[in-house]
Amino acid sequence: MTYQEKLEIGTRGRGTYEITNAVHSAVRKSAVTTGICHIFCHHTSASLTLCENADPTVRSDLEAFMERLVPDGDPLFQHTLEGPDDMAAHIRSIITKMDLTLPINAGRAALGTWQGVYLWEHRTHPHHRTITLTIQGD
Amino acid sequence: MTYQEKLEIGTRGRGTYEITNAVHSAVRKSAVTTGICHIFCHHTSASLTLCENADPTVRSDLEAFMERLVPDGDPLFQHTLEGPDDMAAHIRSIITKMDLTLPINAGRAALGTWQGVYLWEHRTHPHHRTITLTIQGD
Amino acid sequence: MTYQEKLEIGTRGRGTYEITNAVHSAVRKSAVTTGICHIFCHHTSASLTLCENADPTVRSDLEAFMERLVPDGDPLFQHTLEGPDDMAAHIRSIITKMDLTLPINAGRAALGTWQGVYLWEHRTHPHHRTITLTIQGD
Repeated sequence: MTYQEKLEIGTRGRGTYEITNAVHSAVRKSAVTTGICHIFCHHTSASLTLCENADPTVRSDLEAFMERLVPDGDPLFQHTLEGPDDMAAHIRSIITKMDLTLPINAGRAALGTWQGVYLWEHRTHPHHRTITLTIQGD
Repeated sequence: MTYQEKLEIGTRGRGTYEITNAVHSAVRKSAVTTGICHIFCHHTSASLTLCENADPTVRSDLEAFMERLVPDGDPLFQHTLEGPDDMAAHIRSIITKMDLTLPINAGRAALGTWQGVYLWEHRTHPHHRTITLTIQGD
Repeated sequence: MTYQEKLEIGTRGRGTYEITNAVHSAVRKSAVTTGICHIFCHHTSASLTLCENADPTVRSDLEAFMERLVPDGDPLFQHTLEGPDDMAAHIRSIITKMDLTLPINAGRAALGTWQGVYLWEHRTHPHHRTITLTIQGD
C-alpha cells in the first residue's frame, strides 16, 4: 500500500518550522498500520530535521551553532550570486539532509517522546517550500 | 511484506555500540529477499551511523573529531539544563542522523565489506535506547 | 513491487560524480508510478548527496568547505594506515551519509528543479564504487 501527499509551506526566512502534525495527519489518511513514512524536501537550500520539541532554546542553540559552522558570506565561497546566505544555505542543507524516514507502528508515525519533525529554512528571506510525504506498508 | 521489530539497548555512556548482528537477525526473521531495512533511533541525543568496523581507531578518531566540532559546555549554548553534554548531544545527533536505510539483497542486509551499523550514544551517562527496525520488500 | 539494480562507478579520485540519469533510468525500468527510490553506497569513504546541479562553483565550494572542516592529515587522527586522506574520508562519509531516499511520483524520481544526485568520492586516489538502487511502490 502506497500513499503520497504534498505539503506546501511558506517560510518567513531562516529558522525551523514544525511539520509534525502534518506528518501525523498524512499517516492517518494513509491507513497504513505498520510501515514507513518518507519525507522529502524538494530544495537545495532547505532541509528536514528531527529535533527536541520541548525547549525552544534547543532550536536557537542549533541555529547559533550553524551560524558558526557555516557562516554567511564566508570568504571561502565563490558561489555568491544570490547573496551571502546562498552557499551557506546549500552546505547547511547538505549537512542536515533533505530526506528523512520514520517508522509507522500501530497506525502512527512512531516518533520518540521528544522528537518533532522540522522543515529547516536556511535562506534569510521567506521562501515557498514543497515537501512530499510517501507512506508505505500494510 | 512488512516486518517490524524493536531493539532495546542499554548504553554505558558516550560511544558507538555495534548493532550489525541484530540488523542481520531481523532481516533473516523478516524473510524478505529483496527490499529495504529502515532503522530508527527514537531519541534526540543518540544517533545511528555506518562506520568502518575493522580498526577501532576509526571510532575513537570519530569521537575525537566530534569532541572538537561540537564540544561539551560550549559557551554558545543556552540549553544546559541537563548538563554540559546536553546540547552537544542534540547537535551531534542532528548532524549524524537518527534514521538509516539499508538495501536487502538475496535475503541479507547488503552492507559493504567494511560497513558496520552503530548506535551512537552522545550523552556521557548510560541511557536506555529504543530502535525500531522496519523491513519491506518481496 | 520491488525493483533492484546495481551501479558500478569508477571515480578519478576526490570529487562529486553525478548519477541523476542512472537514477532516472532505474526508476523507468522499475515501472513504479508512486513510491520511493532508495540509493545506497556500499563504502565507508564515499557518500551520496543531493546538490544544486546548475552552477559548478557550488560543488567546488562544498569541497573547499569539507577540506577546511575535515582536513587531510589532521594531527588528531590515529587511523592513518592508508594515508592522510583515510580518516578524513571516513568522517566526511559519515557526515554526508551513505544512504539517500527519493520519492517517486508519476513514474519519475521527483527531484526538485535544482537537485542532482551525486556520488561523493572522499579518497584522493581513483576507486571503484558500488551503489544499490532499490525501488518500491505501486
